[in-house]
Amino acid sequence: MTEKELELYFKDNLSFYDNLSEIELKNLLSCSSIQYYKKGELLNSKNSTCTGIVLVLSGQLRSFMSSNTSREITLFNLFERDICVLSSSCVYPNLTYDVNLEAVKDSSVIIIDSKFFKELTTNNLKIQSFFLNLIQDKLSEVMWVLEQVVFFNLENRVANFLLEEYYLNDSLEINITHDFIANNLGSAREVISRLLKRFENNDIVKLSRGTIKITDIEKLKSLKI
Amino acid sequence: MTEKELELYFKDNLSFYDNLSEIELKNLLSCSSIQYYKKGELLNSKNSTCTGIVLVLSGQLRSFMSSNTSREITLFNLFERDICVLSSSCVYPNLTYDVNLEAVKDSSVIIIDSKFFKELTTNNLKIQSFFLNLIQDKLSEVMWVLEQVVFFNLENRVANFLLEEYYLNDSLEINITHDFIANNLGSAREVISRLLKRFENNDIVKLSRGTIKITDIEKLKSLKI
Repeated sequence: MTEKELELYFKDNLSFYDNLSEIELKNLLSCSSIQYYKKGELLNSKNSTCTGIVLVLSGQLRSFMSSNTSREITLFNLFERDICVLSSSCVYPNLTYDVNLEAVKDSSVIIIDSKFFKELTTNNLKIQSFFLNLIQDKLSEVMWVLEQVVFFNLENRVANFLLEEYYLNDSLEINITHDFIANNLGSAREVISRLLKRFENNDIVKLSRGTIKITDIEKLKSLKI
Repeated sequence: MTEKELELYFKDNLSFYDNLSEIELKNLLSCSSIQYYKKGELLNSKNSTCTGIVLVLSGQLRSFMSSNTSREITLFNLFERDICVLSSSCVYPNLTYDVNLEAVKDSSVIIIDSKFFKELTTNNLKIQSFFLNLIQDKLSEVMWVLEQVVFFNLENRVANFLLEEYYLNDSLEINITHDFIANNLGSAREVISRLLKRFENNDIVKLSRGTIKITDIEKLKSLKI
């Protein structure tokens, strides 16, 4: 991607583009870089320094929290044109949580330097407002996850997860491990495997190594939240 | 509280006070009102129109999510000088969750009109920055709750809860119902009662109607997260 293409991308995807001064735009371009990540690679880890603002060009990313005992829960997925701001929490004292960010598929992203972006938001009302909206979005998404975890049982949540994967890939054959589902839902692999086995006994899915085939989508839908 | 006292309160408690223009200050005072709530009263419910920005003058409030089946989980508690912005989510399209706000003790609060406050934040960089920090705080608090729920077992969380109540009231005798603990932790009363009974059998607490007396605080501390 040339600098001109990057500028065009910003023009099309950043609502505050027109509010940037000439010098701000110049700095934005020089503080942005394009990075490529292979499926499974970590872009940002809660234990490392913070990556920056991440804009997804292609692929899919997953933002998640993790425990000391290697349990995980997904906060949100990021697709083309989505933006992650929690990967720059180091520069915001009020964001006390560092999240992990992982490539679910091979992905390309634009990364904007955290400190530079913070300066931009601090000095420009429109950019700050854009950032505020993003943080409000993330708050809403995390509240959604909390609601799912607290008020719904795991059977419903696994049904939801399988249906989302079905809609996302437009295929009844889902290539994921039980471990991946557990890490998305904040559960343990054994628990998910037991639950999927029950789904199989009820003729809802057919399990094989690395694959879950939905055999009765209506029954699965009746289980969703 | 006279208008002069209210102005003094704002001067002492709102970091953006000095950035208010004369007309903004005048409007802020006229768009603020003082309200009193009895213990147990709801200030804001997810099913009603939104209350506004809430500043706690005295007492204690609890912000919580609730399910259709009357389950609840506390997001955060608010004490003197704390501010709740989620009770004005109606004017922010990116805040898709409405929370409930309840007086845990008899409380007095200042309520600032939602629409007026949104206008303030939209036009004034410093006020928007103040609001952004508050939203980031809330995001961090909700992530903390999610972490507790997903990665820790209920025994640890109940131990934590009892210790917090102990520190808060500086008394080993805690006057709360099992239902109240369940509603704070997103659990069911029966589950909490069973757990507290186990604590009693292990000589950690002594239970009586409406009261939990901590009898071995060191044992309780060994259970906390």
